[in-house]
Amino acid sequence: MEGVFVSEFIRPIREKANFPERVYVFDTTLRDGEQTPGVCFTPDEKVEIAKKLDELGVDVIEGGFPVNSEEEIETVRRIKESGLRAKVCGLARCVIADIDACIKANVDRVHIFIATSDTHLKYKLRMDENKALEQAIAATEYVKSHGLECEFSCEDATRTPLDRLIRFYKSVEEYGADIHNVPDTVGVMEPEAMFYLISSLKRELKKPISVHCHNDFGMAVANTLAGVKAGAAQVHTTVNGLGERGGNASVEQTVAALTAMYNVKTNIRLNLLKETSRLVEKYSMIKLMPNFPIVGDNAFAHEAGIHVHGVLAKAESYEPLTPEMVGQRRRIVMGKHTGKHAVASFVKEKFNLTEDQIKEVVEKVKSLAVHKKKIIEDDVVAVVEGVLGSIPESEKIVRLDEALIITGNKITPTASVQITIDNIKKIAAGVGTGPVDAVAKAIQSALGEEIRLLNYKLEAISGGTDSLCSVEVTVEDKEGRTAMGIGVGGDIVMASVNALMESLNRIYRKRRT
Amino acid sequence: MEGVFVSEFIRPIREKANFPERVYVFDTTLRDGEQTPGVCFTPDEKVEIAKKLDELGVDVIEGGFPVNSEEEIETVRRIKESGLRAKVCGLARCVIADIDACIKANVDRVHIFIATSDTHLKYKLRMDENKALEQAIAATEYVKSHGLECEFSCEDATRTPLDRLIRFYKSVEEYGADIHNVPDTVGVMEPEAMFYLISSLKRELKKPISVHCHNDFGMAVANTLAGVKAGAAQVHTTVNGLGERGGNASVEQTVAALTAMYNVKTNIRLNLLKETSRLVEKYSMIKLMPNFPIVGDNAFAHEAGIHVHGVLAKAESYEPLTPEMVGQRRRIVMGKHTGKHAVASFVKEKFNLTEDQIKEVVEKVKSLAVHKKKIIEDDVVAVVEGVLGSIPESEKIVRLDEALIITGNKITPTASVQITIDNIKKIAAGVGTGPVDAVAKAIQSALGEEIRLLNYKLEAISGGTDSLCSVEVTVEDKEGRTAMGIGVGGDIVMASVNALMESLNRIYRKRRT
Repeated sequence: MEGVFVSEFIRPIREKANFPERVYVFDTTLRDGEQTPGVCFTPDEKVEIAKKLDELGVDVIEGGFPVNSEEEIETVRRIKESGLRAKVCGLARCVIADIDACIKANVDRVHIFIATSDTHLKYKLRMDENKALEQAIAATEYVKSHGLECEFSCEDATRTPLDRLIRFYKSVEEYGADIHNVPDTVGVMEPEAMFYLISSLKRELKKPISVHCHNDFGMAVANTLAGVKAGAAQVHTTVNGLGERGGNASVEQTVAALTAMYNVKTNIRLNLLKETSRLVEKYSMIKLMPNFPIVGDNAFAHEAGIHVHGVLAKAESYEPLTPEMVGQRRRIVMGKHTGKHAVASFVKEKFNLTEDQIKEVVEKVKSLAVHKKKIIEDDVVAVVEGVLGSIPESEKIVRLDEALIITGNKITPTASVQITIDNIKKIAAGVGTGPVDAVAKAIQSALGEEIRLLNYKLEAISGGTDSLCSVEVTVEDKEGRTAMGIGVGGDIVMASVNALMESLNRIYRKRRT
Repeated sequence: MEGVFVSEFIRPIREKANFPERVYVFDTTLRDGEQTPGVCFTPDEKVEIAKKLDELGVDVIEGGFPVNSEEEIETVRRIKESGLRAKVCGLARCVIADIDACIKANVDRVHIFIATSDTHLKYKLRMDENKALEQAIAATEYVKSHGLECEFSCEDATRTPLDRLIRFYKSVEEYGADIHNVPDTVGVMEPEAMFYLISSLKRELKKPISVHCHNDFGMAVANTLAGVKAGAAQVHTTVNGLGERGGNASVEQTVAALTAMYNVKTNIRLNLLKETSRLVEKYSMIKLMPNFPIVGDNAFAHEAGIHVHGVLAKAESYEPLTPEMVGQRRRIVMGKHTGKHAVASFVKEKFNLTEDQIKEVVEKVKSLAVHKKKIIEDDVVAVVEGVLGSIPESEKIVRLDEALIITGNKITPTASVQITIDNIKKIAAGVGTGPVDAVAKAIQSALGEEIRLLNYKLEAISGGTDSLCSVEVTVEDKEGRTAMGIGVGGDIVMASVNALMESLNRIYRKRRT
């Protein structure tokens, strides 16, 4: 496949595997993903994420566990009624009340589950196997009698004896279950065992098989793929691998591997993976590690001085697929391993600068690198532009002459600023929810225009109250010009102000060129 | 094995695998981990991490790439001379200068590498296969002539034809190479292909085989384990899975799986995994996602209202191994799925409180949960203690009556506070590097005592300048009492002040009980 540079050793593996014609993606970000301790989506956020998942191309969206609350029923119903192409599914225990909540939520599919492992039967359900099977069958019948699709899961399937699994899945199949999901509830499987399990079930069952893998030992993706190799036609995934404990199989990694390694079809538009990930990152408030595969900030980043020469000569040297395929971009990063010479030659090549300017850029980049903060993780071009943007002082279009910011427990955060723009002094004040907001309002008021803040990112190093902060802002003006600014320092408020001023200067430069 | 609850489906897989007697762990956190864009360890940090890795029980520590700089040579030498049990290794291209730098660093082992894939030979090395082999042999001879151990890698091995790999590895073996490392440099393998590759090499080679896997598709751990199944006796890992792009195989996941799933011996003391991870998290400044397997904050966390009943009844219901095995602890977390009833019954069971106090605790916990911030990810006990500490208002020992904080670009950040302690009013002012520092100084001055700030953690949500911030502080008084406080709000400065006041109140309470 074009733009894919995986190992040739995979070819024979691919040929002997029992792949389905195409794999259906069942996304459970809104249900199992939301069960991540500390994560909670508002109803609006859930609907917005569902729309994005639909655009991404997932086949089924598990919207929630409707019996949880009236709000959950309403949210799942809103998702269903927002006119998606994807099917909408609700989770239910094998009890009438749960299924009724799903019906009330107007779902296409009910995902019913009951635990089948010894431990779960004995300590959680306090029920014997026969009683559990009775409930499973009754629930299946109830779902089907309402004309809905029925997906059935043996909870903790991977710690349940094979003969018992076959008994459960075969029985519900007889009563009309449409798809058999096999959850590795506690993430205790490995790929060969998963292949064996799914192959064994596939021989016994007529309806399609689905796999649902947890990541407790870091093998959720490999186990999911092993299931598909054995013929599973559906995979359960979450965006960013969200989920309880070690999380679930990440949709990004699973689908990228299915496509690039195995050449198996899904309905996913790979180039929307990054923006989907970013949306869920925002609402879950779980920030990806930079080295999160496929969609992390570093997934296609290269530190100048290490492999950059190889990457620039031939990207596939150090990239398994092109960043554009998954909606990412390549980033060349300056850091410890980047010599002054490398910075200088890069700058020379890209920009038309005087020797003095080059020297200044290099010094600034290197001194940023010494801070060993992630302030230099952005694209080299942006770093250089940033450095350029702030030199020379005399050429700045907007200058902050004075800023005074006051806050406290008995006053409204207030700021006053004096700004020079084109040699005209402007003075204004502002109030806000906090000191940073107040000064941002004052600056906008002085400039007499509204600037939209697309992004405000603050990072503080754990340490004392005098620790360094790094603030990154991105602003947009009315004509849609955007620019970034970075501020670093011991004063949170002033670092924010400096970042804002830097980004504004860059906006004004763009206007005039 | 006691405390391990993995799948029985793994048993037959384990029995047919070609496992080595024990697996050697070669840790490359300080070399490949440090190549993570944005990561840079100081020499002191490297030595401290090396000592911790030694305590953890890794067999080989790759300390760096000595030819990079004199400082790197000196750092690797310091690691070697700090008297570790582990062997110390340095990386070198197949050139004399690189190996000389390793020799100068006094390493036990030199890890030499040369690229062998078509792409790398053609575009990076601009060298033909024969020339590369010549260099590999010359480098091997040079390392061995200095009496050092020689580990040899074909860079990008997994995109190199098998016959070429055999030619390279066999040749260096003839010239004395001690161990063959097989890097999946660009993370383009999958487990079955890895098993095939390592099995094929093992049939041809006499010396032990090592695997080095990258995580571009999220399969570094599974590929590493597949290599071990095929007989690889050494694994390359990094702490927290640090490394370029998607990172390297995580030592935590790899070793936990080897032990718990396959019952294969390593020298690792599993119960030190968490503290090792925490140290590297601190110095790399790459914060783990909470759902990072084994050592993440959520790896053994359960949100009350979901599985907690099952977990409390029988932990193995939702845990593949006991948290203590890997130096972790179980955490019960309150969140969206936690009903008031569950919170109340938990609180009742643990604390001896009046009905009114219980009600107040429950309300506060639920209202914190609504903020959907990670402020409730700490241990429930801590949350409850925190809630207790702040009620009732009238019983607070230290109260902040007034606070006024000023900052700007032309003034020194200044704050004044009026505090009541035991009904005595105290007024003081302070200056600092920023507004938070200034007000912290003013509060300490008003109290007339020095409070050591052990931890100041600020989290801000990406969004506007008016986004919510969460501040967590831990303080310590002169007698060593510590207490935590949390502040949340739209005003960064006041959230910090509130957190500080909460922690101080808790310190004073401790003093008087």
